[in-house]
Amino acid sequence: MAQASSQVLPATIGDSEFDRDTAVTLREAGVYDAELSAGWTIIHAVNGGYLLALLGRALGDALPHPDPFTVSAHYLTPSVPGPAVIRTQVVRAGRTLSTGQASLFQYDESGAEVERIRVLASYGDLDALTDDVRTTAKPPAIPPLSHCIGATDAPDGSRPPIPGSSAITDRLMLKLDPTTLGWAVGAPSGKGEMRAWFGLADGRDADPFSLLLTVDALPPTSFELGLKGWTPTVELTTHIRCRPAPGPLRVSITTRNLAGGFLEEDAEVWDTADRLVAQSRQLARAPRG
Amino acid sequence: MAQASSQVLPATIGDSEFDRDTAVTLREAGVYDAELSAGWTIIHAVNGGYLLALLGRALGDALPHPDPFTVSAHYLTPSVPGPAVIRTQVVRAGRTLSTGQASLFQYDESGAEVERIRVLASYGDLDALTDDVRTTAKPPAIPPLSHCIGATDAPDGSRPPIPGSSAITDRLMLKLDPTTLGWAVGAPSGKGEMRAWFGLADGRDADPFSLLLTVDALPPTSFELGLKGWTPTVELTTHIRCRPAPGPLRVSITTRNLAGGFLEEDAEVWDTADRLVAQSRQLARAPRG
Repeated sequence: MAQASSQVLPATIGDSEFDRDTAVTLREAGVYDAELSAGWTIIHAVNGGYLLALLGRALGDALPHPDPFTVSAHYLTPSVPGPAVIRTQVVRAGRTLSTGQASLFQYDESGAEVERIRVLASYGDLDALTDDVRTTAKPPAIPPLSHCIGATDAPDGSRPPIPGSSAITDRLMLKLDPTTLGWAVGAPSGKGEMRAWFGLADGRDADPFSLLLTVDALPPTSFELGLKGWTPTVELTTHIRCRPAPGPLRVSITTRNLAGGFLEEDAEVWDTADRLVAQSRQLARAPRG
Repeated sequence: MAQASSQVLPATIGDSEFDRDTAVTLREAGVYDAELSAGWTIIHAVNGGYLLALLGRALGDALPHPDPFTVSAHYLTPSVPGPAVIRTQVVRAGRTLSTGQASLFQYDESGAEVERIRVLASYGDLDALTDDVRTTAKPPAIPPLSHCIGATDAPDGSRPPIPGSSAITDRLMLKLDPTTLGWAVGAPSGKGEMRAWFGLADGRDADPFSLLLTVDALPPTSFELGLKGWTPTVELTTHIRCRPAPGPLRVSITTRNLAGGFLEEDAEVWDTADRLVAQSRQLARAPRG
């Protein structure tokens, strides 16, 4: 949205930095080459949601159905910017759903493949779903976008205290609910909640693949729990429930159980039509802090 | 618990019907033979949680770590009682966590293997976790066990209206919160909630593998939403957060988003020490009803 509000025309689905940086090239049946962009890193790690979008696009090409319905990812080793290969397998091709597996590999010094992340996913056609909706869930209580706070207007006027986070920050329209931003000024709320308006900085609207980025793009709830440092994801499962309407998304992330050095993060993503478009849950290691 | 309350000594972990029916036999490196018992069927389908426990035990043997921390299962084809083979793969063996994959196959008329369910899982050692607990989640509000209602004392004096469900029902101590039992007497609450006390009928206490059964053992929340019929699981991911204390478990299942012919079911399992021992979420097809 940042650029959309300037003189530049907004990017479109299929023609945006996100689309270019998540492009996969068919090498041979089921095998795709990719280049992990340095533009989606937090600290020195490539964002897990960005990696999920890459894997999601490869499976969308390999499977007979186009849209991710449920994607389960187990993170194995940290990814770094640079070349990668995604190997996919069609596990089952059904009438309304198909299931596939994909692994993303990078290369060690000797050129041997090192597996970074493995995914099991079931795909379908979101446009073929019924209109039946009986949702009791309510959109997150978040102030208007204009009242929320982004990286360049942090409450103390500084950048948010995430060293090296600027790469991905520059590509996101991320406006945090001030009531979940205490951590940024050294006063965490103690509640495991994070809420934000989310978009891509170049104005590209959301689609099922960008939703895979959205569910893992906010600061970790552990910051509001007073824990500094990295919260590495062990496993992240995302349900895409409908095709998002154009415009900024509302994202809420909640942690209810921090125990034994691990925590869960539940994410909900709502679109401008007040529909719950994605639900995700991850298990992550809690920071020592 | 049913038998525990009679003259029979309660079964123990390792020596119970659940342990016998989830036993896997090493055929060759990473490959296990199993026999799916008809004792854990609902209608004509083998319960998905029972299948998960079988896969969990095979991975517990194949991986260097003993306990499932997070298990992601994608259900491919309906399982039937009878012989099965589980093929496992060690994806990554780390210091505190290891990740594995397992598939359960049965055989078609020609004897060819048909894949029923595929699992990605990360294992660790629950006994090695820190005691740090900062849980804001609260145990489910459920009446005392003596005020809840089981299969043999359904409100209208009949068996619950799940044809053919008696096989698994006889093996579970399942006492439902009367406020989530309206469906059993034709008066569903319209809320996507189901709560129950859970145990194994022979008194065997819970462990991480039986928790994989527990998260998928209650009647579907869709019954309380007024929808009759089958709610087949597409994907089910379970986090085991600590080793459960002895005694009956409290289980709450919640559905917040029934839309487009699919619904999510979130399960929480609490032990007698008031600890949140397991969290799960599944994506399932909503009944047409």
